[in-house]
Amino acid sequence: MSSSFAPLAPPKRLLFGPGPSIVAPRVYEAMGQSIVGHLDPFFFQVNEEIRAGLQAAYGTANPFTMAISGTGSAGMEAAISNFVEPGMKLIVFANGFFCDRMTEMGRRQGATVLRFEAPWGQSFDDAAAAEFIRAEKPNAVAFVHGETSTGVFTSGKAICAAAHEVGALTIADCVTSLGTMPINIDTTGIDVAYSCSQKGLSCPPGLSPISCSPRAMDQLKARSTVNHSWYLDLKLLADYYDGARRYHHTAPISMFYALREGLNLILEEGVEARFARHEANHEKLVAGLESLGMEMLVEPGVRMWALHTPKVPAGVNDLDVRKKLMERHGIEIQGGFGPLAGQVFRIGLMGEGSTAANVDLLVGALREALV
Amino acid sequence: MSSSFAPLAPPKRLLFGPGPSIVAPRVYEAMGQSIVGHLDPFFFQVNEEIRAGLQAAYGTANPFTMAISGTGSAGMEAAISNFVEPGMKLIVFANGFFCDRMTEMGRRQGATVLRFEAPWGQSFDDAAAAEFIRAEKPNAVAFVHGETSTGVFTSGKAICAAAHEVGALTIADCVTSLGTMPINIDTTGIDVAYSCSQKGLSCPPGLSPISCSPRAMDQLKARSTVNHSWYLDLKLLADYYDGARRYHHTAPISMFYALREGLNLILEEGVEARFARHEANHEKLVAGLESLGMEMLVEPGVRMWALHTPKVPAGVNDLDVRKKLMERHGIEIQGGFGPLAGQVFRIGLMGEGSTAANVDLLVGALREALV
Repeated sequence: MSSSFAPLAPPKRLLFGPGPSIVAPRVYEAMGQSIVGHLDPFFFQVNEEIRAGLQAAYGTANPFTMAISGTGSAGMEAAISNFVEPGMKLIVFANGFFCDRMTEMGRRQGATVLRFEAPWGQSFDDAAAAEFIRAEKPNAVAFVHGETSTGVFTSGKAICAAAHEVGALTIADCVTSLGTMPINIDTTGIDVAYSCSQKGLSCPPGLSPISCSPRAMDQLKARSTVNHSWYLDLKLLADYYDGARRYHHTAPISMFYALREGLNLILEEGVEARFARHEANHEKLVAGLESLGMEMLVEPGVRMWALHTPKVPAGVNDLDVRKKLMERHGIEIQGGFGPLAGQVFRIGLMGEGSTAANVDLLVGALREALV
Repeated sequence: MSSSFAPLAPPKRLLFGPGPSIVAPRVYEAMGQSIVGHLDPFFFQVNEEIRAGLQAAYGTANPFTMAISGTGSAGMEAAISNFVEPGMKLIVFANGFFCDRMTEMGRRQGATVLRFEAPWGQSFDDAAAAEFIRAEKPNAVAFVHGETSTGVFTSGKAICAAAHEVGALTIADCVTSLGTMPINIDTTGIDVAYSCSQKGLSCPPGLSPISCSPRAMDQLKARSTVNHSWYLDLKLLADYYDGARRYHHTAPISMFYALREGLNLILEEGVEARFARHEANHEKLVAGLESLGMEMLVEPGVRMWALHTPKVPAGVNDLDVRKKLMERHGIEIQGGFGPLAGQVFRIGLMGEGSTAANVDLLVGALREALV
């Protein structure tokens, strides 16, 4: 017989890494509310509010906008497995870790995956990207709107326009951009967007908000092959959330309460005001980092507002710095990995965490730790 | 711009249906604790405690025992997609809804699925089941240990023994049995068991505890085809939780806190004492239902202790009864569905909810509502 556990006592962390980010106190309170069943009318009411909140944050009128009952990676798999069928041609715009994950998932679905590459930390040349799409005429095109491994922002406008010219569906990873900067799904031309709950939405991880254009839903309805995944089959999920409310799975109701509250905080602040706050604190942090003699990996204009990748100064060990921040202040930031291992820090200012006071705290702590 | 939402105010429900069940107050408290990152040493400490608690509840020494970051249906898909490869022969023992779901998932993996059927509400003849397995020599055999749609318990001993004779792997759905009755994975001969967090463990839905025998893990390591699912690929998950702690996905840490606390409540009570409590309250409820003139669908000996399926008395409308229970007491029970629609009630006594006082409450409320 195993003995029981001591009371749960998590260490206090100031989460300024690439995610998860600091959770809003009101979100914790929402998770403490009594659950109801997954077929209770109250659950569907919560789901409607989530839909409205996500539409505002994503910038879309897509009716099919909901939360997948899994983390951001489950959202990626839902996007790829529903819209990339065996034998299809998928182009992945690849300039970081999460583009590689999309590539892997596309291959697991039996697609032919072509990669249009740029070095980690750099963005794509719009004209070359469009030309590649026109030449290859893929069935689907995937890109990462906010690359958490590098800090690069890809608006996707040129990619989506070219993709639609050749009749391809567009898929965008918005895991780190949702709730922190404009995505504007509809005007950008994104057909399938997915994200997570634990970054810009200030909730714990566990849900993946997804939004699909009517065009994407038409393709889904016409799909002749069966998705290998039953759990992530959006045809079945549409029937549960939007159709006959036919039981599919037992939705993680406490996480839905959390997501609703995270979105409520966004609506109360106002979507535009929230983006402006993230932009202002982003600029303040960049200025602060530069005042410490640090150089940004990513060029101005394609920087995310929620994730910053200053280069590790020459002669400085990134692990030492991160250890000092953790030991002295309980601050978590992350380092780079893959081709950027040891070369950059990854510093997040997301949702609740994006405040001027936190920028001052971070810059002050880094000033001491870099010595 | 969407307007913001009113404060979250869920209705109070007494959850005595087939799940989700009543959440323990200490579990809600655990979910309110500060999150840490998914690579934080504290997260892995919590994960080790979850492993120990699940091993006790499942009755196993399997080292690979952990929580999938999705609901029970994600656990089912993890079990099927990792251990049932394209072209394999899978036997499903089919006497209820969740057996049908396993069948569907097996087909989506490209397996040949054979079904050994019994009517909903009945159990299998051990000798005939074993004979079928010996004759068909499948690669894998799946059964539902506790069928939530009917209330039938299938111990699986005869099925597992015959399966191992022919070298087949055994998969058991323990969604409604974990934490409420003995499963004894190791002595029963179950190679892959999965469950959920929201029934016998008294947590909200969102995680799926899974346990795999060393034999199953050997088969997984030797697997030559690639799992279509990246999110549920247990090779990758083993590398995150047990191996190099290589980042896979951002684990839903608040749900892990919840699961740890739900398991802690089991360890504090003692696994055997907990099962005895469920058995005693099960017997008390059956006696109470019979005192109201109700007849049980399932024969004694193969009844689950957590889910009860009394037949709807002649002349009684099940919807009317359920409506009265909800309106008068906030009590949620469910009706039957599929072939049992309108014919049975489904009444759960799970985890926190399995108390003598709740049995009295339920029987008293039913006595009034049946009139």
